[in-house]
Amino acid sequence: MVATNKNYILKKKTASTTQEIYKGITNGDISSLSRAITITESCKPADKQISNELIQLCSTKTNPSLRIGITGVPGVGKSTFIESFGELITKSNKKIAVLAVDPSSQHTGGSILGDKTRMEQLGRNPRVFIRPSPSGKNLGGVARSTRESILLCEAAGFDIILIETVGVGQSETEVHSMVDFFLLLMLAGAGDELQGIKRGIMEMADLIVINKADGTNVTKAKGAKKLLQSALHYFPPHKSGWAVKTMTCSALENVGIDEIWQTCLDFEKQQLKNGYLISNRSQQNSDWFQKTLSTQFQELIIGKPEISDLIKTNETKILSGQISPFQAVDEIIEAFAKSFT
Amino acid sequence: MVATNKNYILKKKTASTTQEIYKGITNGDISSLSRAITITESCKPADKQISNELIQLCSTKTNPSLRIGITGVPGVGKSTFIESFGELITKSNKKIAVLAVDPSSQHTGGSILGDKTRMEQLGRNPRVFIRPSPSGKNLGGVARSTRESILLCEAAGFDIILIETVGVGQSETEVHSMVDFFLLLMLAGAGDELQGIKRGIMEMADLIVINKADGTNVTKAKGAKKLLQSALHYFPPHKSGWAVKTMTCSALENVGIDEIWQTCLDFEKQQLKNGYLISNRSQQNSDWFQKTLSTQFQELIIGKPEISDLIKTNETKILSGQISPFQAVDEIIEAFAKSFT
Repeated sequence: MVATNKNYILKKKTASTTQEIYKGITNGDISSLSRAITITESCKPADKQISNELIQLCSTKTNPSLRIGITGVPGVGKSTFIESFGELITKSNKKIAVLAVDPSSQHTGGSILGDKTRMEQLGRNPRVFIRPSPSGKNLGGVARSTRESILLCEAAGFDIILIETVGVGQSETEVHSMVDFFLLLMLAGAGDELQGIKRGIMEMADLIVINKADGTNVTKAKGAKKLLQSALHYFPPHKSGWAVKTMTCSALENVGIDEIWQTCLDFEKQQLKNGYLISNRSQQNSDWFQKTLSTQFQELIIGKPEISDLIKTNETKILSGQISPFQAVDEIIEAFAKSFT
Repeated sequence: MVATNKNYILKKKTASTTQEIYKGITNGDISSLSRAITITESCKPADKQISNELIQLCSTKTNPSLRIGITGVPGVGKSTFIESFGELITKSNKKIAVLAVDPSSQHTGGSILGDKTRMEQLGRNPRVFIRPSPSGKNLGGVARSTRESILLCEAAGFDIILIETVGVGQSETEVHSMVDFFLLLMLAGAGDELQGIKRGIMEMADLIVINKADGTNVTKAKGAKKLLQSALHYFPPHKSGWAVKTMTCSALENVGIDEIWQTCLDFEKQQLKNGYLISNRSQQNSDWFQKTLSTQFQELIIGKPEISDLIKTNETKILSGQISPFQAVDEIIEAFAKSFT
């Protein structure tokens, strides 16, 4: 009876916490939003319950938004770009949330997290909410937190969600799977700067922008833009019916930023009209559901010592040529089937 | 005792079958090779045992080979290209095996399977072995059979393995994960022809060839080649250190085929020297092992009615907005953990 009582009190307490935070979020209260995001990032069971309830409530509150992913290698000028771009967007009375998807362990350069002085001006803008990537989590954890944060920010009345990532790992694929519009920042001349960028990113982009088109670099940037625009003709078309564009800009000198914003608006208009924005979000939810399920199933299975030991043994045997990968798989699946059925 | 005896007889029988086929394969006997491939494609337990033993034996017999993947949309001229390309390669005393990775259900155009008159000349060449994609299998099954067939063909003394696929589904990613060199055939003008091609393929290619550079099409093809070559500068570099090339050819008029073959040889030389060909094959084995394991784990789990029912219910709930994908995943994982631990 004591336990039931405790549970009852806990449930009542979390329910009142949930309602209180939810009310704050829908009133656009930033500290409620921050608190909610912190709760979704937490691993405590009580927090998990509140988080699930909050996400549930916020999912039903539909606020039209545009989710924009921004990627590019370190040094391409993502923060400066987001600063200029964000300032411009707020001028049209829009509210912006800036989130980051970069597991702390993978950091190679500057990030929202690492450098507090970056985006200083934007951070002081009352229409802007900046939230760094949750620390101490793997990519899967960061991706989930970010997906949940998007819903919370939208419920709090943010119209534009900018999601920043460094395009050198797996995170840009994750970001692509949670946004409506994917913007790739590049540099003229590229070559060495592209070391480490993931293949396939270019073909994911809805808009490719050559940044740092300033000073002596303008001609080079325009040449790069023209070349890429012609080459895009040989890229597979996007399912959305959107014709990918290339542009140049100077985030530093604030040149070309308005054209980029106009392109986002054109995209939104077209994609709302043809229904792809909505159907794509459904598909993203479904893909995310399938993928997470598969990953978590596997994590549970590998948690079983006899299975994880067999996987390790067989991996060693594959490397030394003792067994083929085909046979290795068969053996493990057989052992799993026995323990499972 | 009777059962043990029967098992003993079965084991003895399969062992003698395995040895007999293996001997045939290593002697380069084509009917033994064909029989072995048929056995790997079979689902019978006795065949599975022979197949595993054969793959085991053949894996140890290392024969230096080059595995070349060839992809492109229907109508790009893959068969005509393979015919010209294959004939040329056999002139340098090489033996070629041509395999296809296209699950029968996904066929959209002509294929090795569908049209017996294609590659007629090449099929009569004694240095060539052509094997269609196994029918009635899903992509996973086809991919595994093809991986196993590659090993069998190599043990049978084939130097060059050509693996053909239509670049409009998931199969080209599978092919990319089992070859050393990935060749993408395209057409000048592209545009409409690219409908349905998978994004990211272009960035996987080691060589992009504009086919049908003949007649009035030559100038257009050369222009496309030049444009793509310039644009490649903005593509992420390959981990292998290989600088991707673009070329034109006319498979019909046999023009440019020798340069393509020379490029394959240059690639092989470079990649053997820098060790990437070998390390990449190891990585492919390891990736394949992980991926197959994950898929097969999931298949077993979904085979459990209570789990598969919950997945279906929750998918419906996600679509109707009753629960978030996050919550849906949590519920299923909880149910699985209970049934599993």
